[in-house]
Amino acid sequence: MKQEVGTARLGRAALVSIVVTLCLSGVRVTALKPQLFTRRGASGYSAEHAVSYETRYFEQKIDHFGFLEDGTFKHRYLVANQSWNPEGGPILFYTGNEGDIAWFCNNTGFMWDIAEELGAMLVFAEHRYYGESLPFGQDSYSDSKHLNYLTSEQALADFAVLIQELKSTVTGAQLSPVIALGGSYGGMLSAWMRMKYPHIVVGALAASAPIWQFPGMVPCGDFYKVVTQDFAKSGFNCDVNVRRSWRAIDNVSSTDQGLQWLSEQFGLCVPLKKREEALSLKGWLQETWVNLAMVDYPYEASFLQPLPRWPIQVVCKYLGFESAVSDYQLLHGISQAAKLYYNYTGRSSCLNTSETATSSLGFLGWYYQACTEMVMPMCTDGIQDMFEPQEWNFQAFSDECHSLFGIRPRADWAGTVYGGKDIASHSNIIFSNGGLDPWSSGGVTRNISDSLVAIMIPEGAHHLDLRYNNANDPPSVRTARALELMYFKKWIMQAKKAP
Amino acid sequence: MKQEVGTARLGRAALVSIVVTLCLSGVRVTALKPQLFTRRGASGYSAEHAVSYETRYFEQKIDHFGFLEDGTFKHRYLVANQSWNPEGGPILFYTGNEGDIAWFCNNTGFMWDIAEELGAMLVFAEHRYYGESLPFGQDSYSDSKHLNYLTSEQALADFAVLIQELKSTVTGAQLSPVIALGGSYGGMLSAWMRMKYPHIVVGALAASAPIWQFPGMVPCGDFYKVVTQDFAKSGFNCDVNVRRSWRAIDNVSSTDQGLQWLSEQFGLCVPLKKREEALSLKGWLQETWVNLAMVDYPYEASFLQPLPRWPIQVVCKYLGFESAVSDYQLLHGISQAAKLYYNYTGRSSCLNTSETATSSLGFLGWYYQACTEMVMPMCTDGIQDMFEPQEWNFQAFSDECHSLFGIRPRADWAGTVYGGKDIASHSNIIFSNGGLDPWSSGGVTRNISDSLVAIMIPEGAHHLDLRYNNANDPPSVRTARALELMYFKKWIMQAKKAP
Repeated sequence: MKQEVGTARLGRAALVSIVVTLCLSGVRVTALKPQLFTRRGASGYSAEHAVSYETRYFEQKIDHFGFLEDGTFKHRYLVANQSWNPEGGPILFYTGNEGDIAWFCNNTGFMWDIAEELGAMLVFAEHRYYGESLPFGQDSYSDSKHLNYLTSEQALADFAVLIQELKSTVTGAQLSPVIALGGSYGGMLSAWMRMKYPHIVVGALAASAPIWQFPGMVPCGDFYKVVTQDFAKSGFNCDVNVRRSWRAIDNVSSTDQGLQWLSEQFGLCVPLKKREEALSLKGWLQETWVNLAMVDYPYEASFLQPLPRWPIQVVCKYLGFESAVSDYQLLHGISQAAKLYYNYTGRSSCLNTSETATSSLGFLGWYYQACTEMVMPMCTDGIQDMFEPQEWNFQAFSDECHSLFGIRPRADWAGTVYGGKDIASHSNIIFSNGGLDPWSSGGVTRNISDSLVAIMIPEGAHHLDLRYNNANDPPSVRTARALELMYFKKWIMQAKKAP
Repeated sequence: MKQEVGTARLGRAALVSIVVTLCLSGVRVTALKPQLFTRRGASGYSAEHAVSYETRYFEQKIDHFGFLEDGTFKHRYLVANQSWNPEGGPILFYTGNEGDIAWFCNNTGFMWDIAEELGAMLVFAEHRYYGESLPFGQDSYSDSKHLNYLTSEQALADFAVLIQELKSTVTGAQLSPVIALGGSYGGMLSAWMRMKYPHIVVGALAASAPIWQFPGMVPCGDFYKVVTQDFAKSGFNCDVNVRRSWRAIDNVSSTDQGLQWLSEQFGLCVPLKKREEALSLKGWLQETWVNLAMVDYPYEASFLQPLPRWPIQVVCKYLGFESAVSDYQLLHGISQAAKLYYNYTGRSSCLNTSETATSSLGFLGWYYQACTEMVMPMCTDGIQDMFEPQEWNFQAFSDECHSLFGIRPRADWAGTVYGGKDIASHSNIIFSNGGLDPWSSGGVTRNISDSLVAIMIPEGAHHLDLRYNNANDPPSVRTARALELMYFKKWIMQAKKAP
């Protein structure tokens, strides 16, 4: 991994195009844009899978690791106990990630699908600083002093304390084995929960959890390689033409006429005025391709956006040009592809390239986490991937974080506290990953031991296994879910046998 | 465990006579009283076991769990690498407890005794806020704001970061297996180090570590039962006469004449003036008997004080009265016993009952820790033990902590974060305990699994196994050390075999 001191511009570019755009961006984007929730809510699955749960709040300590700050906040969690066997039935505990917990609750159909068979209570616990679980209310994001308790360690401690509370107060739950589940950053938290609190959770399903996407653990370019492979195998010359598009944008955006043409082609809400604005167009497109790779599901779905089945295949139909194609023809195809992603339902009157740069809470929250513990190097070389070359530049990244929050990231901390690649002494963790999911590049994709197992879903995108069963599911994800259920039963049996 | 709301007096009594007096008091006492170090230094063992080490300092983050406080402090550690095999030889890492690390270094002869056989580097890492490792220099104890980073979690993180640093900077150490060792609170830290950072230490020897001396884990009276048993078996009527002494003190101290007589008998530096001062005399004696139980070693030693071999047997020679004995006769015996403990060398001109109430740094540090995470219930009933009845009163304790530091203890936190009695999923920890040591009451004294093993040393006091080999060692401690060494070798082998 190469680290070079860069300019502030590079620093910002690294932040914007790498951290913001890519760090678990799917979840972030949705977490940040409540308007998307509405669209999703209207798109149908809620009707298809109506879920019923109770919303509860627990008085949680703001600081678990110091005693000066003794305040508490209302920690939101959702409980569904319709299927629960109150005589010690297990608890499936979703370790919430960077967004509104209700959204994770609705997007984790697997838990709902298996609740009855296990006689399980479902609990979805919100991550502090997201959704309604704001340690300092509206001041939570006011400055870095108030943000100081936004760490994964504090979130894990919230979960631990909450589970202890549930077990001691819910009749019948005292001996209930608890299994942690989560996807993406939530999956990382599930794995870490089992590592750090094995007395509290008997096992964990860490779905699409890039626990190794930290400095020195995996090559920084692997993430974008996966995105590129997804495009390469979804249509003729698809990756090739995306790779060509960057230069084409540079060419076309060099004139005012070209900028106007681009704005019209992409149906941008705010037309491009200056050549430099093409940079944000490119950043926005790069994020779009990444998001498509994350949600390349085998059926119509609306995880990040309402999309058709195998959306990259649909996108690639617009990009199947031979080599001899004009910049304008190429970019027309690119614009069609972007519209597929942003306007599949036909309800958007224009596309907004600054949509990902919103400063709403969830955005800031993950931004802060990336600037502190969650340092996830990403890079591109334009050869093994279809993007413009960009090196990972920790110093520039750190400088940008410092200018934004007055803090600096600690590149090695996540590895020190969570073990990096040396996690073999732990037990009862399933790491599931999708072959189409770029985040699999930072995931555990091989068995580490008999009880630290990797499940690969070659046809799977971002935590497909956590979604509801679907008639169009490929056999690999059905097998994955069956295996996961089998392990859950095994862990529950183990727990009940223990003295 | 009974908890009742008490008066402030009870609260203070609980603090003074329970927390301060008893919570790992031996180590605390020594940590707090530099003058004792000098006495100890002069008493001979340093000459007998001259050790040579290098003192180093590492820039350690003040706050590992937040990013606002980005300051660092000089974390002191001692290194002895005379015996080290620089081609990946193991590192024996002492996880320092609440005191000056040089003292622990000098009192952990076991590490020095086995270094050559293992080709091991010895590292003794100081605990933050003790010795020279003061996060805010002279201001470290100035108020609860500065004390806010004094927690076991921060100390463990210090150790983790320091070990990572050593492995990445010391040539030959990159693949060195690291074994954590510690005694008393340091032993708790060793066990917790393996639990929380198993990727950093391959195993731990937790000697006389009362990891279960927390609310709800063991009966609060067990500690004093062990002290009482030590006296009961060390001489005729020894426990019986200690139990009688409290009433005798009450009786005698009810007159000015009696107070004067007591002051003379005990050779007190500051004579007793009021009847109420008899309370501090009793608290001081109670601590004395506890300390004797902790250091009831089979040979002349000077761990807390210079003492003869089997000091309780010597003490009990003064206390072997038949039942029909006057208060004055009884208390004469008690005073002789106290003098044995405080003035075995004959160098003290008078005894100081306020000696344990010093406000030096180490004292305050452990006091703060007891008032935050290290809530260790203790109680007496006067029937199963030889002390005056005193219930454990959490509320009064909490109130006292609040009035002192403006913070309140979190009674359940240690159990939540470190697992309480549910630690079976961990591995490679030896819990050694001495049958004579009152702290064994809160320790792990039975095997939990094949690799979480308990080693009992029936004739051992407080972490006897960590001391130098001695010709008078009972066979049980020799066996214990041999077993410990065997496990160390096994862990090192395992680590070297791992991929």
